[in-house]
Parts: sequence; C-alpha cells; structure tokens
Amino acid sequence: MNTLNRQYLLAHRPEGPLRESDFEYREASVPTPGPGEVLTRTLYLSLDPANRVWMGPLPTYRPPIGLGEVMAGFTLNEVVESKDARFRPGDLVECQGGWQDYAVLPADALYKVAPRGPLSHRLSVLGVPGQTAYFGLLEVGRIRAGETVVVSAAAGAVGSITGQLAKLHGCRVIGIAGGPEKCHWLTTELGFDAALDYRAEDFPQRLAAACPEGVDLYFDNVGGAVFQAALFQMKPHGRIVCCGSVSIYDTDTPPPRLLGVPGLLTLRRLRMEGFIVFDFHDRRKQAEQALAGWVAEGRLKVREDIIDGLQNAPRALMGLLHGANIGKRMIRVAPEPSGKP
Amino acid sequence: MNTLNRQYLLAHRPEGPLRESDFEYREASVPTPGPGEVLTRTLYLSLDPANRVWMGPLPTYRPPIGLGEVMAGFTLNEVVESKDARFRPGDLVECQGGWQDYAVLPADALYKVAPRGPLSHRLSVLGVPGQTAYFGLLEVGRIRAGETVVVSAAAGAVGSITGQLAKLHGCRVIGIAGGPEKCHWLTTELGFDAALDYRAEDFPQRLAAACPEGVDLYFDNVGGAVFQAALFQMKPHGRIVCCGSVSIYDTDTPPPRLLGVPGLLTLRRLRMEGFIVFDFHDRRKQAEQALAGWVAEGRLKVREDIIDGLQNAPRALMGLLHGANIGKRMIRVAPEPSGKP
Repeated sequence: MNTLNRQYLLAHRPEGPLRESDFEYREASVPTPGPGEVLTRTLYLSLDPANRVWMGPLPTYRPPIGLGEVMAGFTLNEVVESKDARFRPGDLVECQGGWQDYAVLPADALYKVAPRGPLSHRLSVLGVPGQTAYFGLLEVGRIRAGETVVVSAAAGAVGSITGQLAKLHGCRVIGIAGGPEKCHWLTTELGFDAALDYRAEDFPQRLAAACPEGVDLYFDNVGGAVFQAALFQMKPHGRIVCCGSVSIYDTDTPPPRLLGVPGLLTLRRLRMEGFIVFDFHDRRKQAEQALAGWVAEGRLKVREDIIDGLQNAPRALMGLLHGANIGKRMIRVAPEPSGKP
Repeated sequence: MNTLNRQYLLAHRPEGPLRESDFEYREASVPTPGPGEVLTRTLYLSLDPANRVWMGPLPTYRPPIGLGEVMAGFTLNEVVESKDARFRPGDLVECQGGWQDYAVLPADALYKVAPRGPLSHRLSVLGVPGQTAYFGLLEVGRIRAGETVVVSAAAGAVGSITGQLAKLHGCRVIGIAGGPEKCHWLTTELGFDAALDYRAEDFPQRLAAACPEGVDLYFDNVGGAVFQAALFQMKPHGRIVCCGSVSIYDTDTPPPRLLGVPGLLTLRRLRMEGFIVFDFHDRRKQAEQALAGWVAEGRLKVREDIIDGLQNAPRALMGLLHGANIGKRMIRVAPEPSGKP
C-alpha cells in the first residue's frame, strides 16, 4: 500500500465560475481506521454538477463543504482495512470518499456492491445518475407510453439515461444539448427522435417546431433560458420534473441564486401545480353540498361586496383588480324576484 | 318586462391598468330566443380577476373577448322566456350572461339552481370562488390536519373561503392581504391564526417569523413578489397551488405576461415537481436491477467520460459545469484491482 494520500481541499468558496485556485492540493498520510470504521481506497471519483453547489455557502440536502475540508464527491472505493465485521479487504463499496486516494469512513456510510459489469457503471448507469433518471422519470414524472418527453442536458450523465428510458417506455423523446456533436450522438446512437442545440439563435422556435402538439413531460436539468423555452411548449396538464439547474450553478449570479424557480423546487422537493376550477365541473354538486353544509352550520362565513347597478361594473372591476374589495364582489343588476319561484 | 337591454361592450384591449374607456355602453333591444334557446334576465353579475385576463389578447381556457362584444362575466339569471322544455319562466340559472340586462343563451349553457339561501351565494360561496377554494385546497393541495397553510389575497372571494376551509380541516392558517382592515377581519372574524399585510416593508421577514417551521401548502392567488416571498418559506416536500396571479393581470407588463411562473402553470394546469434522488434511497436496488437488465439486453447504452488521474479533477469539474462532457464524467483515481474480489 502506498503511504501517500493525495487530497484536494476546498480553499475558497467560488465567486462566479470555478477556478483551479479554489482548490488546494495537499499530500497527507494514509489515515487509520478506528472501531466501526473502514479504510478505503478510491478507484473512481464521480464528477457531478451538484459538486459545485456543495462548494457554495448554502446548505442543500447536505451541509456546505467546509473551507479547508477535503472536496466532497461520490466514489467507488475498495476496502483496504476494516474494523467492522461487515467488510473485508477487497470489498467494493460506493461511498462519499471525496477527492483523495484514501478515506476512512464509518461502516454505516458504505454501500457494498457486487462487481457485476464494468466497475465504472457503479458511478454512471447503476449509480446516482442512473437512479436519478429512473426515479425522476418513472416516479416523479409518471411517464406513459405515447407521451412527448423533452430532456435538457440530454448528453449528460442523467439526461442521456433519462431520454433512453423514456424511449424504452414508448415515448417520443426530444433531447436538448449544446453543439452538433452531442445532438448527433443523441439521434444516431441513443435513438432520440430529435435533438436540438440550445445555442442556436432560433432555439425556441426550433423547439416549438419539434413538438407541434406540445410537451407532456419536461425533464429539466438546466433551469434558466432553456427551462423558460420548454415551459412555453407545455401541453395542458403537462408535468415538469425539476431535477437540476446546472445553467446557474457556476455563475456569478448573486446568492441566493438557487432560491427561485426551478432551483428551489429541486432543493426542497416542492410541487407546484396549477389548476382551473372548471376541470372539476362534473363534481360541482359535491362541492356545493359540502360548502352549503358548512355555511349552514356556521362554520364557514360568507362576506359579499355587493354593488348596486350595472353602470358601476367598470369601476368596480377596476377596483377589484387592486384589492378594493373584501370578500366576493358582484353587481346587483336587477332586484331579486319578489316571490322566489 | 323592460324593453331596454343595457350592455357594456369591450371597446379596447387594455394596455396597462384598466380604464373606463376600455368599455363602451350601449342600449340595445331585448333579444328573442330561437329554438333550444332561453331568454334570461341578469340578477347578479360576478366580478372576478380573471375577467381582466379575458380582455387581453391571449386565449386562456376560453377565447379572448372579441372587440365590440358584450363584456363577459359569470351571472345568476332568471329565466324570462324559454324555447327549451327543461326551463320555465322564473327558473334561476347560473350562466355566463355577461355585462347586460338580458341574455339569450343555449339551454345547454344554463345550470339550474334551487333558490336555497341568499341568491348571491350562487356567485360566492357556492359558485366559482367556493368551488375554486374547495377543489384547489382538497384535490390539488391535498391538505392534511396539522399542516401550515398560507393563502394570499386572503380577504378576496377565493382566499377568504380557502383559509376557512383549511381551518375547518385542522390546519394552521396564515392569510396575506393588503392593509390592516383586511388583516383584522381575517383574524377576528374568520379565525385565521395570523394575517400579514404584504405592503409592509418587512413583509418577507414577517412571513418567515409567522411560519417558523415553514409552510406545507401555499395557496397562491397573486403571483409576483408575494409568491416569491412565500416560495422561500416552503418546507421540504411542500406544495404550491397555483390558483391565480392577480398581481400581474392589470399591469402594463408586456405580453406574454402570463407565460411564466406561476401564471402559465395555472393557465395550462401544469405540475412542476422537484426531487432529489436520495429520497428514493431505500428503493435503490429496484432501480439497479431494472437498469442493469436494460443494459444487459442492449436497450440502454452507457457512455462514460473517464479521465485518468486525481490531479485532473479540478479542471474536469470546471469543464463539466460548462458542458465539456458527453455522458457520465468521472476520474479514474487508481487502477482497478487486478483480481476482482
């Protein structure tokens, strides 16, 4: 075993695009595991857009990486020495080993994997990106055969699997990526139905042309302008899966840059849903009965802002739009019939 | 029966805040129903923020009101003369009678109502606003007892019912409204737990203070700055019901002003949902098996962008954030063990 542990530490919180000087290289000695701990050696280190978010000042689903700490990252490691009965030297484990050759980790933080197929698959198709595509598309997005699916960052780790899974489930799939090489790969190798370069000046128009009937599901990995363009193409009752916002991760946009749409939706797993009451038209009697019952019981109070005279409708609407009313505003156009029918 | 039919027509599409001159007053004669039609007289005319949207150039869930057409609106009408067997003079009907004394409508467009309780309730608690609160809160928002619910435009027709229904279902309810009178009404008369004036300079801070544990459900009637403030206070896995965006309906924001978040979500009944893959951690083996199976069958292609050497990690991450990769990027830190365990 080597006795040198090469490490990269977080030296500065990046302001704007990441620079090499935001990292500090250090040579440490190989650490020793205590009871319940395991010494592991890094074989593969995953690079993910989320790494950049962890370098910022905001807590996410994990605390920010501390200044002077080893840079965090998902890894596939080999067990070197174990002080826990569940692991033996030579075992392969997925873990958050970080940017270093050796990591001592609590045994509970290790996920043992069988060496089936290429080891690197543990960080791609079977690891975080593959899992993200699988659950994002099938559980959050609930795709159905025949739907039109648009995926951004489609040539990336998550997007390239997401698009293929959507094809596997019978969807029409349009990928969005940067540059002709990526787009060519998506359509010729991965079987996407179309691929669009978001750098094209007329990208929004091309997207509209590629989805003439609109988009059922948009799987968003990027946020920003591409998100906006896709939003415009959504079909009624369409769904948007907010997976990531890589377009803003490495910018000098002032914090709290993730505190918006769609960044914060991802971070906090929020669901936003629009509706129009007329979609429930066939169930209106159900609502009426419930509402009338609560009113009759005195549990629901009704305040109405009734203005007499059709001639007052224009000004009354103008006021309504600026909060002049309390409760429901309406115009009494004619007196109620004397003997109600 | 009067022979005069007072009408307000849409004279101009408003540019910026609505003006009286956007309407034209006309005196017409009372129309005559044809076969299958019904002559009705307007008793109550509902004024709704959505009216302003219908005056604009965009189709929504209905076509824009045509220039020179009678201004559209929900109404409670009395049947005067019927050429359809289902209706008789004196019947009360909900319909879209518009801004006029008399409307001839197809019998299929009328919804007969029993004269139970005050007639005006047909346009408030039992009509569109009550239905909107009921389905928006219970079906779209799926509230549960004990949750913290925030409602904007809380003193309005929809908001005042929404907040009360949330209280009825055991939630803690915070209303947002403009000015002390409305806020006072919400807490003293309607039983809201708190009410906040969005015009206060420190409104975002007050909202945060009123929801120290965050917001489970935000029922948004306004969009804009209030929406942004509420967004920041959402709990993980919170839900936002996008009911309306009254803050932008009557502005000179250039079109397509509704084509954004949250306006377009409402208009097209979209669902946006953020997620983090680790929420599905206990089901990761399910995903692995499915993904590995598709890879083995050749139906899912895996492209990896493997870079050798830990020393290349900083630059490789910088490139990843700007799309330098195709497929999953990772660092090979150490050679794979020769005899895999």
